[in-house]
This record gives sequence, structure tokens and C-alpha cells, in this order.
Amino acid sequence: MTLGNDFNRLKKLVDDHILDYLPEIDPKSGTLYEAMKYSLLAGGKRFRPVLCLAAYEMATAGKGDLVFALPYACAIEYIQTYSLIHDDLPAMDNDDYRRGKLTNHKVFGEDIAILAGDGLLSAAYEVMAKDMLLYLDEQDMLKRKVKACFEIAKGTGCRGMVAGQVADVENEGKNCSADMLHFIDDNKTAAFIKSSVMCGFYLGGADKIMKENGRTFGECLGVAFQICDDILDVVGDPKQRGKKTGGDAELGKSTYPAVYGLDESYRQAGELLSKARESMIIYGEDAVVLNDILSYVQGSIRRDD
Amino acid sequence: MTLGNDFNRLKKLVDDHILDYLPEIDPKSGTLYEAMKYSLLAGGKRFRPVLCLAAYEMATAGKGDLVFALPYACAIEYIQTYSLIHDDLPAMDNDDYRRGKLTNHKVFGEDIAILAGDGLLSAAYEVMAKDMLLYLDEQDMLKRKVKACFEIAKGTGCRGMVAGQVADVENEGKNCSADMLHFIDDNKTAAFIKSSVMCGFYLGGADKIMKENGRTFGECLGVAFQICDDILDVVGDPKQRGKKTGGDAELGKSTYPAVYGLDESYRQAGELLSKARESMIIYGEDAVVLNDILSYVQGSIRRDD
Repeated sequence: MTLGNDFNRLKKLVDDHILDYLPEIDPKSGTLYEAMKYSLLAGGKRFRPVLCLAAYEMATAGKGDLVFALPYACAIEYIQTYSLIHDDLPAMDNDDYRRGKLTNHKVFGEDIAILAGDGLLSAAYEVMAKDMLLYLDEQDMLKRKVKACFEIAKGTGCRGMVAGQVADVENEGKNCSADMLHFIDDNKTAAFIKSSVMCGFYLGGADKIMKENGRTFGECLGVAFQICDDILDVVGDPKQRGKKTGGDAELGKSTYPAVYGLDESYRQAGELLSKARESMIIYGEDAVVLNDILSYVQGSIRRDD
Repeated sequence: MTLGNDFNRLKKLVDDHILDYLPEIDPKSGTLYEAMKYSLLAGGKRFRPVLCLAAYEMATAGKGDLVFALPYACAIEYIQTYSLIHDDLPAMDNDDYRRGKLTNHKVFGEDIAILAGDGLLSAAYEVMAKDMLLYLDEQDMLKRKVKACFEIAKGTGCRGMVAGQVADVENEGKNCSADMLHFIDDNKTAAFIKSSVMCGFYLGGADKIMKENGRTFGECLGVAFQICDDILDVVGDPKQRGKKTGGDAELGKSTYPAVYGLDESYRQAGELLSKARESMIIYGEDAVVLNDILSYVQGSIRRDD
């Protein structure tokens, strides 16, 4: 289960520049920078920023300079990282490990972890606003950036990711309905994945049809991504995942396997991934990275039986 | 110690519309909206959003429509409110009361308080980005909004308020140097107050000199504000403050009275407030609200002896 060259080329770009866009942090602010850096470099797959860059490349038919989209891709990863730091806190999921490393609060303490998260979330918008300042006199480009920023805010805020997180937390230990499960996953996971894709399409000036297909792709991939994560929490290998399995059941989380059973969860994930793939057919080779990510997610839950 | 009519007119505008700019929140996201609303309506003085609106009125010589600045003023209050919610958490200052009411986590639990804070911070940027979408074809206005948004991000992020918070937390119980004390207060408090003022000046299209004076005003008011808060934590009346006194000393916080003693703290606060007032002299009656706030802060530590 590996990702292709194009995925890795974009991922490397994010890895190489993830710290470059952080605002300059005064050493007097103690471990703030260390704490932010620790989680930014904790070895994620960078799916969301890569989705943004890949969509941008698609929209510009490979002609757009990636530097135009890179600050937004990094901002996306800052938001993803803040959400993981806060999610791992004792008052939330209380996780000691993430991606095989100690979680932020286990290393830096709860107070610094909360603030490192706040710092990363703030940094995301500071980066985007600062980048807009460079394009004040290029109206078309500035418009794209504003729209891209709005997509990210919408997908990750209180009618997106944060809404999903609250619903997730408040439905722990309850037998939640399929309706509520869908609300949680649409918001907790899919909204941000969709907005990462759309961010790239807006930055690249995608046409209306590409944006419509992008929304379908993002929504389907996003929910499938969460279903697969739910499935792997039941059947996965803790070593490969870098965190324990069975955590969801322990916390009584609302998951696809809990609501639908394992077999139906596999089926629904497969269906969503197929739908996502269909939305990209007309773009052929231009959609190589987006398709690659679909294959990766599909492969992660492949059954040998 | 009261605030004038013009202050109250602007404060009322914020009070009346503080919930209007929140993104529409789905009832499925449980208590998220309630938790955000609880702290937004907990009865703050609205100094920061009023500073923004007052600066905007000054820059437009009273001719600007306040609706142009109001989303930004509300965004500022969302950020202020998120920072208080997170600051009160058990892992941070562990406060049970704020403005005479139970703190957010005492009512909604720590998990929801963390997420309500995250939701408010995200909402601030969603509001600003959404507002920018309305001005995509009015380039001059859009530029002002982008600059205003950047000012807020810079003042409240990891080279502003969050940096100050980390330094504050990490210097608890240490005999911190005057240098570090200044770093903490410049960032924890003054940076955001300055950026609230500057946000209004940018939105109003202030000229270069007004912006320079605005920076001086914001910096001096901001630090004076923190010194007064430090002083009141020593000599204040808990009933009037809506929270206990002596909390700083208990936590071994780095404060002006701890580093300089009370008398010198009073003197420095007075000096800064005078400097702030001087920066506004040339604007006469146009600066009525800004001067009113100075008088209020000065009055809060007036000694009867």
C-alpha cells in the first residue's frame, strides 16, 4: 500500500516548507515554537495539504506555480495539527500516542498543548491573510485567495469540523442514530477534506464543473476516510496505525461499525470511493494524485479473505 | 467610574449584534451553540470591539457606515471570548468564575469549553472571510478588509496574544525579569488591544499619521490596561471585579506589582495613559471614545488617598 510519485512529490513540498510559513516566533515565548513544531513534524501523511496542491495543479492544468498554493496547503496542515492536539487532550479523547509518538500534552503539558493548538489555528489564518497582502493589486488572484480562505474556515469551524467534534463527544456512550452518525462524520472529517480540495480548486481558478465534481469527490472521500478509520479501529494493527485499536469502542464512540456492522461499513466505504472515482473520470491523468489517494484509502481496508 | 454616551452607543451595537454574525450552527452539534453564546453574553465591557468601531468612526470622520466594521468588531469579540474560555481552563488559570458567572468549563465541561473556544476562534475568521466575499469587486474596500484581518491575526496569534500566554504560563512561580514581564504584557494583552484599534483604522482608510498615532495609542493603552488589571488583582474589590483577587500572587504570576512594587506600577500606568492621550490630542472631539476608555482605565485604579 504505497502512494505514487506525484503524491510524494507534493507531500515532500509540504514537508520541506511546513515550518517556513509559521510567523516568526520570539524565543521568549518559551516552548511554544517547540510544541508547535513537535506536532507539525510528527509524521502525518499530509493528505489534506496534498489534496489542496493536487486540486490546484488540476485546475491550472499543471501550469500554476505551486508557490501560489503552498501557504494555503501549509495553513491546512496547521489546522489539521491543531485539531489533533486538542482532540488528544485528557478532557477529549485522552490519547497518549499519535502516529507512534507521545501526544503533545504528554510531552509539553496540557496548558502548552492547548496554547500550541490555539497558536497553530491562529497561524493558519495569519499565513493566509499575510499571503493575501502580496496580491492586493492583482484582483483576480486576490479573489481566489479570499474564496479559498472562506472554504477552509467554513469546513473547519462551528458548522464544520468543530461542530462534528462536539457532536462526537456528546454522543459518546449513546446508541446514536444513523442520522447523527452521518452528521458527525460529514462534519468531523468530511467537511475539512472537502474544503481542502475546494481550496485548491479555488486557488487554481477551476471552472464550475470542476468545482462541482470537486465537491462530490471531497464529500465522498471524506466520509469514506472516516469509515475506513472506524473500521481500522476495529480490525487494524496498532503498530501500523501508530496508536492503539479499540479506542472507539472503549469510549462508546459513534462509528460506522457500531451502527451498521463491519460488512455494511466495508460496502459503504467502497461505494463512496467508487463515487469519488467516477467524479474524476473526465479528468483522466490530470487527476492522478486524487485517484492515488482513493486507492490508498481503499487499500488500507483491503481484506485478504 | 462610568463610560460616556458614545462608548455606550458603540457597545450597544456590539451587544445587539454579537450573535448575528456567528455562522449558522446545526442543532445536531449539541451544546456548541449554547456554550459559545453563554460566554459571548457573559457581560464583558466590549472594550476591544468598541475600540475597533471608534477607530473606524475616527478614520471616516463619522461618515462611514458602521455596518462595514461591525463584522470585524464582532470577530474581535469572538477571539477575546475564546481566549478567556481557554485561559480559565483547569490546565491553565483554573478559574471558576469570570465576570461574576461560572466559567464555561464549569457549566459545559472541559471538552465542550475547549471546543467552544476553538469554534469561536474559527468563527472570527469565517466571519471576516465571509464579509470579504461581499467586497470582491470593490478593490479598495477589499484591501482594507484584508489588512484589518491580518492585523487581528498578527496581534492574537503566535507572535501576539498566544505567545504572551505561553510566556505567562511558563514564568509562573519564577522571579521573572522586567524584560520578560514586558514581553508577556506586550503580547498577552497589548498586542490584541493595539490590533483592535488598528483594525478599525485600516477599515476606515486612516491616513499614515493616524495609523502611527493609533499604534502608539494601542500599545500604551494595552500595557496600561494590563498594569491596572495587575494592580486590581492586589487592591481591587472581588465583587466589583466579578472574580477573586489575589489570584496572580497565588499562581506566582509575573505582574507589575510583583516586579516593580505597587507605587511604581501606578506611576507607570499613569505615564502610559498620558502618552496614549497625547497621541490623540490632534483629533480633538473625534477621539472622544478612545479618550473615554483611557479615562475609564485611569479611574479604575484611582486612589482615594
